[in-house]
Amino acid sequence: MASTVETQTVRFASLALDCGISLLQVDVAYETYGELNADRSNAILVLHAFSGDAHAAGISKDSGQPGWWSNMIGPGLGLDTDHYFVICSNVLGGCRGTTGPSSIDPATGERYAMRFPVITIGDMVRLQKQLIDYLGIKRLLTVTGGSMGGMQALEWAVSYPESLASAIPVATTARHSAQQIAFNEVGRQAVMADPDWSEGNYYDAKPPARGLAVARMVGHITYMSDASMRDKFGRRLRDKDAFGFDFSVDFEVESYLRYRGSQFVNRFDANSYLYITKAMDYFDLAAGNPSLAAAFDKTKSRFLVISFTSDWLYPTYQSLEIVSALRGRNVNVAFCELQATYGHDSFLLETKEQSQMIRGFLQSVEQDQEIR
Amino acid sequence: MASTVETQTVRFASLALDCGISLLQVDVAYETYGELNADRSNAILVLHAFSGDAHAAGISKDSGQPGWWSNMIGPGLGLDTDHYFVICSNVLGGCRGTTGPSSIDPATGERYAMRFPVITIGDMVRLQKQLIDYLGIKRLLTVTGGSMGGMQALEWAVSYPESLASAIPVATTARHSAQQIAFNEVGRQAVMADPDWSEGNYYDAKPPARGLAVARMVGHITYMSDASMRDKFGRRLRDKDAFGFDFSVDFEVESYLRYRGSQFVNRFDANSYLYITKAMDYFDLAAGNPSLAAAFDKTKSRFLVISFTSDWLYPTYQSLEIVSALRGRNVNVAFCELQATYGHDSFLLETKEQSQMIRGFLQSVEQDQEIR
Repeated sequence: MASTVETQTVRFASLALDCGISLLQVDVAYETYGELNADRSNAILVLHAFSGDAHAAGISKDSGQPGWWSNMIGPGLGLDTDHYFVICSNVLGGCRGTTGPSSIDPATGERYAMRFPVITIGDMVRLQKQLIDYLGIKRLLTVTGGSMGGMQALEWAVSYPESLASAIPVATTARHSAQQIAFNEVGRQAVMADPDWSEGNYYDAKPPARGLAVARMVGHITYMSDASMRDKFGRRLRDKDAFGFDFSVDFEVESYLRYRGSQFVNRFDANSYLYITKAMDYFDLAAGNPSLAAAFDKTKSRFLVISFTSDWLYPTYQSLEIVSALRGRNVNVAFCELQATYGHDSFLLETKEQSQMIRGFLQSVEQDQEIR
Repeated sequence: MASTVETQTVRFASLALDCGISLLQVDVAYETYGELNADRSNAILVLHAFSGDAHAAGISKDSGQPGWWSNMIGPGLGLDTDHYFVICSNVLGGCRGTTGPSSIDPATGERYAMRFPVITIGDMVRLQKQLIDYLGIKRLLTVTGGSMGGMQALEWAVSYPESLASAIPVATTARHSAQQIAFNEVGRQAVMADPDWSEGNYYDAKPPARGLAVARMVGHITYMSDASMRDKFGRRLRDKDAFGFDFSVDFEVESYLRYRGSQFVNRFDANSYLYITKAMDYFDLAAGNPSLAAAFDKTKSRFLVISFTSDWLYPTYQSLEIVSALRGRNVNVAFCELQATYGHDSFLLETKEQSQMIRGFLQSVEQDQEIR
């Protein structure tokens, strides 16, 4: 039985951003699981993917729902909360308690909307560092997350090399490719094409539900694999024996996508969609360095890099680029490509092998710590 | 120097559709290249993909533009017009001269719009058969096309086994998969989410340009490969040295997609987008048969099946399903997976090896004919 958890919020005075602007009065929503030990050496920072939030594990006191990585974080699980103190916060630019475009701008008393500055993965991580400092943690045992969470893990290792013993980037990349940018751009254009978007000023009216739904539908296709869609839906018809010869729902897969698209607007802010996808597209760990390897010049952490065979959105070759760059700087890195049919969603769904890999890796990192 | 060609139109009295309705006064726009020989044995029917039209080769007298397969069809080319008589028509449901949702319904004197019946690949082929009969051709030397054109080639072989000596389906499938349906459904939802779509009644107002543009952007991503997008765009910025930290164009790939999306509305009808994608999704050659192989029970044609290594939208395994089914009925089938980096677009762009394959195959088919 998972225990109930409550999301907490802390406000920081300011946050300097990569664009040159400083945000004032920045809220961070976060949750913690397990207990911080006496020497504060058992803390793990979990970083969520694009549409995730601070509720990574346990049962939410508010919603009664399990967290997005409940099969990974908990007593006896991959990130064992009987042993580790696990922290997860909502990212900067989000819409689940941390300051983002739907938040009130203290300078005007109105919502930021599109006046919110464009943010980066580096900005998200800089805010997380303030949270970790606030919690009194000098050094994290590990930072881990999948997809955009993996980008943050990489950024942590590069920006705060002294502050973590290890990093576990999962199903991710050191830089967004043209194809990844393209899929995000389609989503943004779908949102902005909706007249209800109103240049981002929809908070007192109806949100751009149709545009956001289309964007989310594209996302869902990229999160699954050809094989997992075949297994889950195939060409099965929805509630009928024959084609309707009309434009209502014929196939199960159409019904699924429409449902998931239409539900998304209930829990996600369209402007956050724009800002967070942009942060991902800007992400390029090699930028400003002669090579990706050079970005890891100051890195002292050990790495476990994980990818999944059927993930075509963040394919294995991108994880291998990370591994190769780390090895180019003699960083201690383990790599594993796990067999899974779920596509990019595998990091959320495939847990047995992934949990084993992560548990073993963390034990080894702890042993290293004791020896030092 | 390619010769100029003119699109011709012929009207047929009626066409029985799979949905049970008969269309009246059905126009077909078509072009021909080369000369029909005395015994009418050198005719080739070329079938276009989703957004193609009858203008497959030569220079259009109207637009001054080359055809969509000008690198394949012409004197001395893969489909050698010094030797063959090549025909290409716009598909039923299209918007380039053949009857479709933007055509006038003779029963009302108004445009069909969404009163146009839902059509199938079988319906498209049934109309093409009327055209071939009208041109006085009893037996085609071959039918060929890529993508949706390949579906029509397969349908021809199954529906009119006596009427063709061979078929060359390229970069195609015997049935749309859940993923292929999903991408089409996203495109349809993008069109229908645009308020300007107005339930399809936009012909006297402005068309759903934003929705159609988003749909086309998704399409373009699926037509390219991860590698070809990296080669063509990478992370190159558009007209700037640094990120704009805004939501105007940062990356070349964004600019490309926005341009291609916005241009599409000038040459394509949004309702045709809905009807033609639906026809593709309905396509399942195995439907009503105990197996895909059984669908080819009456097939007498020889086959050349071509796929491309980097085509992830119509992957090689789908071509192999066709090959396997044909071999299960002892049909003479050659298969070739060509190396190409362009993704699904390869069938339009990779011509040297493809042309050689097709030329050699056609010579062999002609020899068979002479022996018979």
